[in-house]
Amino acid sequence: MGQEEINNSDTICAIATAPGGALGIIRISGPRAFEAVSAICALRCDAVGANTSHYARIIEHDAVMLQHQTIIDETLVTVFRAPHSYTGEDSVEISCHGSRYILNKVLELLVQHGCRMANPGEYTMRAYLNGKLDLSQAEAVADLIASSNQATHQMAMSQLRGGISSKLSQLREQLLKLTSLLELELDFSDHEDLEFADRSELLSLAKNIDIHIARLAKSFETGQAIKQGISVAIVGKTNVGKSTLLNRLLKDDRAIVSDIHGTTRDTIEDTIDINGITFRFIDTAGIRQTTDTIEQIGIDRTYAAIAKARIVIWMVDKEPTQEELDKISFITENKKLIIVRNKIDKAGNTPFTIVKVPLVEISAKHNQNIDQLEQTIYQAADIPTLSDTDIVVTNARHHDALVRAQKHLQRVLDGLHNQLSGDLLSEDLRLTLDTLAEITGGQITPNEVLGNIFKHFCVGK
Amino acid sequence: MGQEEINNSDTICAIATAPGGALGIIRISGPRAFEAVSAICALRCDAVGANTSHYARIIEHDAVMLQHQTIIDETLVTVFRAPHSYTGEDSVEISCHGSRYILNKVLELLVQHGCRMANPGEYTMRAYLNGKLDLSQAEAVADLIASSNQATHQMAMSQLRGGISSKLSQLREQLLKLTSLLELELDFSDHEDLEFADRSELLSLAKNIDIHIARLAKSFETGQAIKQGISVAIVGKTNVGKSTLLNRLLKDDRAIVSDIHGTTRDTIEDTIDINGITFRFIDTAGIRQTTDTIEQIGIDRTYAAIAKARIVIWMVDKEPTQEELDKISFITENKKLIIVRNKIDKAGNTPFTIVKVPLVEISAKHNQNIDQLEQTIYQAADIPTLSDTDIVVTNARHHDALVRAQKHLQRVLDGLHNQLSGDLLSEDLRLTLDTLAEITGGQITPNEVLGNIFKHFCVGK
Repeated sequence: MGQEEINNSDTICAIATAPGGALGIIRISGPRAFEAVSAICALRCDAVGANTSHYARIIEHDAVMLQHQTIIDETLVTVFRAPHSYTGEDSVEISCHGSRYILNKVLELLVQHGCRMANPGEYTMRAYLNGKLDLSQAEAVADLIASSNQATHQMAMSQLRGGISSKLSQLREQLLKLTSLLELELDFSDHEDLEFADRSELLSLAKNIDIHIARLAKSFETGQAIKQGISVAIVGKTNVGKSTLLNRLLKDDRAIVSDIHGTTRDTIEDTIDINGITFRFIDTAGIRQTTDTIEQIGIDRTYAAIAKARIVIWMVDKEPTQEELDKISFITENKKLIIVRNKIDKAGNTPFTIVKVPLVEISAKHNQNIDQLEQTIYQAADIPTLSDTDIVVTNARHHDALVRAQKHLQRVLDGLHNQLSGDLLSEDLRLTLDTLAEITGGQITPNEVLGNIFKHFCVGK
Repeated sequence: MGQEEINNSDTICAIATAPGGALGIIRISGPRAFEAVSAICALRCDAVGANTSHYARIIEHDAVMLQHQTIIDETLVTVFRAPHSYTGEDSVEISCHGSRYILNKVLELLVQHGCRMANPGEYTMRAYLNGKLDLSQAEAVADLIASSNQATHQMAMSQLRGGISSKLSQLREQLLKLTSLLELELDFSDHEDLEFADRSELLSLAKNIDIHIARLAKSFETGQAIKQGISVAIVGKTNVGKSTLLNRLLKDDRAIVSDIHGTTRDTIEDTIDINGITFRFIDTAGIRQTTDTIEQIGIDRTYAAIAKARIVIWMVDKEPTQEELDKISFITENKKLIIVRNKIDKAGNTPFTIVKVPLVEISAKHNQNIDQLEQTIYQAADIPTLSDTDIVVTNARHHDALVRAQKHLQRVLDGLHNQLSGDLLSEDLRLTLDTLAEITGGQITPNEVLGNIFKHFCVGK
């Protein structure tokens, strides 16, 4: 979506639901929304109450024989009046039977009556441009739609509800306070001792702001881990039970309502949710099929799988020698390592202890202690327990702005240390403020940036 | 869905949209719909106006720490009051962000508050049981949702709008008239000559009814062809251009709004729409790959493809000999045959004429006369032009009932011919009436039949 393509004055339409359901929803938004909908059904949208639903037949009039009509669908039309709508504009939602033929036909008729097909995310972009949401909240809408477990849902919902916005607004107030204190200092700049006293207060204020920005920037690591899922590799010798364990873990993935038609996962991915966090199993099929032993661990792909993982589950079915343990520790340096002793149900499989590394004793075959292993995996992920008030940055654009803001603020801090005069610091302070404002879109946001943000949305939102 | 499973008194919930869209709609219907929805959001459904939409947060209360709340979604809740709803019951629609996590979570909360997951088609079954639709109209809902082109859409819409119902109602009136005339005849049965006079009127009335039932039953052929698509086989020697033609035909399949995300076909099937009718190309891949010549036509799969086809396109790139033509005609007996001369752009490819069989001259490679070929295919299909008032039977259950009704009526006709007395005919007349009534469900419909009808619906409709 290039700069010239952002057109906020026309009327847009789109199918807002995925194809194949019982219902399909078409959304229309813009100044001609009522007119266009009224032209294709008997309902006078401008005459009915706001937020009311009406039965309406969608009619196609033959272009030549005008009196000849075809009923396209019997629908439910809901009317929303500006500014009390999602976009802030006059909007209509048409709930059709979920046939593609019908949905496409209704879109076609709307386009004939002056609507334009919406671009991805265009409804939410309009909501932003009309001040219904700030930019970070608008971005949260896409995250919310994509959320697939409790943790991603909670982060998106917190952002949508203005979590990051209010945090940034606090920081902005402190930065403005810093600015005004600097100005005060300038006014009294002939009193040398007064300046010194102010500086310590300024410095402490700036340091405090820096701590908060740093904490937000740091939270991106957690945000990314939650959003992308935490990578886990299961490695170990052949026939130690790696595949059995993986199947066991995946089978135990309890979908909340897994027997509803259409709610099952599109693709069976090797992921499981533990305590609302997604764990993504790196494809170690190659490793599983090779006859890798500790001795043969030099195999590239084993290293590759370990390198990609945040957590390594090392499976054994008998006590490793000290030499083997040393190798394992060396190979999994910087990774969270869990040693899993499998086949505890087997005779002759004697227990052992290991220091410093978590050891879980299981029987993959007989589903013993799998719950305990899951909790050990969860603990290894070291995801901080998030309360509702914790702000986690999940968006790379936000992280980038925070990191840049930190750099500007660092120059302010350095200047304060080096007793630079206040007028030399004000530019960096302003840059810090502006950079933080990019996140919520408080500053004027270039159209390219908007285009980039919204092009990743689905159509109809 | 067994007989005992039809429970019309509880409150059902389902996701009515396909997974993966910007929006997801959850439908709730039944006596506790308002109570259940009010329990999971702040909206007092019983206190708001019918057919009104309201912003509402869906809230989950922690089971242990009751004051701890999680916001599941910010939604739009629309309230419908019995009997003015799709099902005829109190109903609510919740328009959520289209995240599976959110949709499943909302369903989970609704189930916690006394709703039950709906079975496929259960909303429409309730609409039928509550007298909002008759049975043939209810069946049309599923056809409408499945409709993929103009013809299937028109047939489903006509049925939904009561087309077949009103036709059957006319027949019913005529059958009742016949019944009362027979009763009248019985009252005057001592006047022998009077009986004779009545009989000719009765006979003509019965014959007229028979003609209409027969016409309806016959329309099933057209209905099936339109619903399933018309099968076409492209056969001919190797390298005559069969694949090129097929690709050309498929590529020309103009989806109405093919550039909308999500509206493209799920699977690229070998079907094209011509004038709103689907033509289904039988997989002649086997034929395409063999070196079949007229001489080698004995190959089983060529025969199989032709046997399955209603239309056979026989491709040649030079004039067939009379012997070849005779063979082609013999093999394609009872099929609609079109001879296509390909490669008309090639030098040395001399035109020829054929009698009795349509001949289309094309260049598949250069896209010449493909439109003309499409229209020839359409004509070969011999689909009667349907006006809006034409009734086409598309449902096998309806066809079965019509055929059985015809048999009962035939016994009435035979009886009238054979001067059987009126009381001997009345049973067959009653059976004719009852059998026709099965179609609209006017008679009490056994639960197994209902179960069979609605189990093919999607969930949420």
